[in-house]
Amino acid sequence: MSTAQLVPVRRALLSVSDKTGLIDLGRRLAAKGIELLSTGGSAKALREAGVAVTDVSDVTGFPEIMDGRVKTLHPKVHGGLLGRRGTDDAVMAELGIAPIDLLVLNLYPFESTVAKPDCTLEDAIENIDIGGPAMLRSAAKNWNDVGVLTSPDQYADALTEIEQHGGLSRNTRFKLAVAAFNNVASYDGAISDYLSGLELNQTQDAIAGHAAFPGQVNSRFVKVMDLRYGENPHQQAAFYRDLHPAPGTLATFRQLQGKELSFNNIADADAAWECVRSFVKPACVIVKHANPCGVAVSLDGVGRAYDLAHQTDPTSAFGGIIAFNRKVDGATARAIVERQFVEVVLAPAYADEALKAFAKKGNVRVLVIPLPAGMEQGGRQHAHPGNSTKRVGSGLLIQSADTGMIGVEDLKIVTRRVPTQAQIHDLIFAWKVAKFVKSNAIVYARDRQTIGIGAGQMSRVYSARIAGIKAADEKLEVRGSVMASDAFFPFRDGIDAAAAAGITAVIQPGGSMRDSEVIAAADEHDMAMVFTGMRHFRH
Amino acid sequence: MSTAQLVPVRRALLSVSDKTGLIDLGRRLAAKGIELLSTGGSAKALREAGVAVTDVSDVTGFPEIMDGRVKTLHPKVHGGLLGRRGTDDAVMAELGIAPIDLLVLNLYPFESTVAKPDCTLEDAIENIDIGGPAMLRSAAKNWNDVGVLTSPDQYADALTEIEQHGGLSRNTRFKLAVAAFNNVASYDGAISDYLSGLELNQTQDAIAGHAAFPGQVNSRFVKVMDLRYGENPHQQAAFYRDLHPAPGTLATFRQLQGKELSFNNIADADAAWECVRSFVKPACVIVKHANPCGVAVSLDGVGRAYDLAHQTDPTSAFGGIIAFNRKVDGATARAIVERQFVEVVLAPAYADEALKAFAKKGNVRVLVIPLPAGMEQGGRQHAHPGNSTKRVGSGLLIQSADTGMIGVEDLKIVTRRVPTQAQIHDLIFAWKVAKFVKSNAIVYARDRQTIGIGAGQMSRVYSARIAGIKAADEKLEVRGSVMASDAFFPFRDGIDAAAAAGITAVIQPGGSMRDSEVIAAADEHDMAMVFTGMRHFRH
Repeated sequence: MSTAQLVPVRRALLSVSDKTGLIDLGRRLAAKGIELLSTGGSAKALREAGVAVTDVSDVTGFPEIMDGRVKTLHPKVHGGLLGRRGTDDAVMAELGIAPIDLLVLNLYPFESTVAKPDCTLEDAIENIDIGGPAMLRSAAKNWNDVGVLTSPDQYADALTEIEQHGGLSRNTRFKLAVAAFNNVASYDGAISDYLSGLELNQTQDAIAGHAAFPGQVNSRFVKVMDLRYGENPHQQAAFYRDLHPAPGTLATFRQLQGKELSFNNIADADAAWECVRSFVKPACVIVKHANPCGVAVSLDGVGRAYDLAHQTDPTSAFGGIIAFNRKVDGATARAIVERQFVEVVLAPAYADEALKAFAKKGNVRVLVIPLPAGMEQGGRQHAHPGNSTKRVGSGLLIQSADTGMIGVEDLKIVTRRVPTQAQIHDLIFAWKVAKFVKSNAIVYARDRQTIGIGAGQMSRVYSARIAGIKAADEKLEVRGSVMASDAFFPFRDGIDAAAAAGITAVIQPGGSMRDSEVIAAADEHDMAMVFTGMRHFRH
Repeated sequence: MSTAQLVPVRRALLSVSDKTGLIDLGRRLAAKGIELLSTGGSAKALREAGVAVTDVSDVTGFPEIMDGRVKTLHPKVHGGLLGRRGTDDAVMAELGIAPIDLLVLNLYPFESTVAKPDCTLEDAIENIDIGGPAMLRSAAKNWNDVGVLTSPDQYADALTEIEQHGGLSRNTRFKLAVAAFNNVASYDGAISDYLSGLELNQTQDAIAGHAAFPGQVNSRFVKVMDLRYGENPHQQAAFYRDLHPAPGTLATFRQLQGKELSFNNIADADAAWECVRSFVKPACVIVKHANPCGVAVSLDGVGRAYDLAHQTDPTSAFGGIIAFNRKVDGATARAIVERQFVEVVLAPAYADEALKAFAKKGNVRVLVIPLPAGMEQGGRQHAHPGNSTKRVGSGLLIQSADTGMIGVEDLKIVTRRVPTQAQIHDLIFAWKVAKFVKSNAIVYARDRQTIGIGAGQMSRVYSARIAGIKAADEKLEVRGSVMASDAFFPFRDGIDAAAAAGITAVIQPGGSMRDSEVIAAADEHDMAMVFTGMRHFRH
């Protein structure tokens, strides 16, 4: 470290909610001759461990009152934190304000308080810390003279500096101050999110309800990395993650090799990952330009799934993103690097042989996304909660993520012909794929392999035509395939065209005014059709 | 108002950065016999206006020190704000803490401080208010007993309540407390955004630079409305806007008539609005499923532009979103409601005749987005700054918005044949449309009318095929049209196919490894081709 503009630490105030590492920290600071001030539970814990501390009330000469609501909100504390060494020395001496050089303080997470199912408004309000954030803000504002520790993670490095040099460097103090302001912003954001989402009971001290969406929403993201550019080279960009990312989501990735990730890599990787996670059996999803261009499931394992997914549209697969829901073996990795140019590979794990194969193509970005216990098998149960957002001119659309997924038991057979077991498997497969294809989405599939994917059209009939054209171009047989549509067919023409192409079974939400006409068409062609009752627009 | 659980106001503390309405407020509170405490500039202003106030330092018995860093951080102030009436009366009496029933306090916006071009780190730090947010948080926490006003907008209603009833109702106090916590969250979010984006100079007290993207990003949005559902009926949703929306953006809309807006309405309306704003001449854009399905510019006005835009793809235009960049006249509105089902109409203004025509179809959502002076003519200069975001699993991609737009002067002619003036107009027109079509995007256009739009494909060649199929289906003549491609052609086949379809001029970014091959192909077909040097992926 640089010891530039080092500020010696002579006096520290410790007041923590998370007591991890507190005793060791207190002991080691005391061993350096640093005077320790403390309050409440922290003071008690330190004393019990034999570390001498001064109560803050002895410093202020004012008792702790109102069940702890007012204890540190005093000029002797804040003057000690805010006083500018050199500038304010005289007034501090005159008023008996001793400088506090180090503040160790963390806040009990407000989100945890209000996440408790029985949390009342009174509990929530009582848990809003007033003195703590005020001290954090004072110490951080005065970073030129004061260090502030807000998390046990920071203790080790700070102790090393203090033990080696007697104080903290300017660089360290600034970084800690920024962390403290980030922490306070997160804390106040959580309070605003909670309170502005409350519906107050008009007559009693009780919460009538929680709005699904608060009046003010304060999102807090931590930078993972700057990106070379955005969706296009003339746009600047960075990638952030939630303060507490959900396990198994893209943001928890580790990059094992390869070039820097691009904006479009990350966006496509997410689409591929979420799609492949929706399958229980070994699956492979290839994404290009935000759409799956090939998807397959194979009981023979991920290698066969990859072969089949690649067959759907080898042209689009070139330069694509390939995701797996199982450990990737050596043979599969070799097949990929020998067969095609690939931007990113994602999987929950890799065999050593697979990593060796990828290492031969050093540019390929290989990402591992660890899956916590219970998530290894994929499928519906792993849909993570959370919101998805869409930025529009100076506005933000926020919605709950599309985690809905029907199972076989939800299917409503609406035709005279009942789908066979094999068709059911294909219908569910095609439906899962359609969910991740940009709307209007039409997916043709057979034997759990995509045969043709029609994406992103302004009218459904063109999506169906594209699916057919693509299948024909790749010489994949549509006859005997099933068809999934992400939304209902408004007219019977879509069914007539599908029958002509050789489609034998259809899955779609239903719900059109002309459902009876559409069902009659399927019956005429002796097709099986099932309704899901759930739409999956994705734009 | 309900006077349920009214708390009488006997003592108020006033300390504001924005002095709007302060004197009137002070006078009227004093006239009700309320004792006023104040500090600094607020105290001075009130006294000069003849309103008697007590200095906070007289209450605390502690001087204001450290150039104002410490003045209100005192138990007599915070005890007065935090003391629970009924519970803490004895200790307050014993320690001489008088209750403060109303806090009037607003903060100087931190964003404004750091937006000043010459703002140093020292200026920024000195502007971080410590005492103000602490008092806001104390008063808001104790909302059961205290009212808190954070904005001059709130004075009138609060004064009415106080003058009529002698205090504030429970409902009012809670609403004000929520507003105060929202305010503090925004303030601390702005500080975190600023500081976590700073690059510190290692040796002096100076800022070495600002990172384009801060280490922690705290976005703050205010709810405009709850939505019936999200992109799909099983998703919950709401629409928010920035704290300070940019003029002329979608979020500033007013709805003049029609059904409630849906999630997809708003998303599509933004695409239509941003696209139509990019044109200087009278223009019409029709959007369906996030893609323009018809766009035209006409010197004859918006009515003709609408006719031409509708011709491109009448099937998709059914149930679409229609945006104009000029006032909509009666004839145009009548043509729309007679010809087609329309979800949303957007324009900067409407003639009375137009509103009458729309009124006959009461479900049609008619939105007006006022354009500030200087923005009426559309075009490049009006691209608003700001970030666009893309949510990915527990993460967020943030990028500067794609506000890039080339002009005629930026075009690089790469073929022997030079485009004619008419072709140049069509090329720029097609390019502006392609920017708003989902990638891969191919746009055929002639006489500033879209002839075929190929959207959202995983490979460019299919987008071109779709554009051709659509033109043929609508019996629009491709021969003599120009073609825009949102990204470069990797191979010459795209050009060969375009020539065969009758395309005479091409606009594309250029930059492929095989540009020379692509240019040679254009030369062989005697086509004109221009490079923009700028890509417009939009996924």
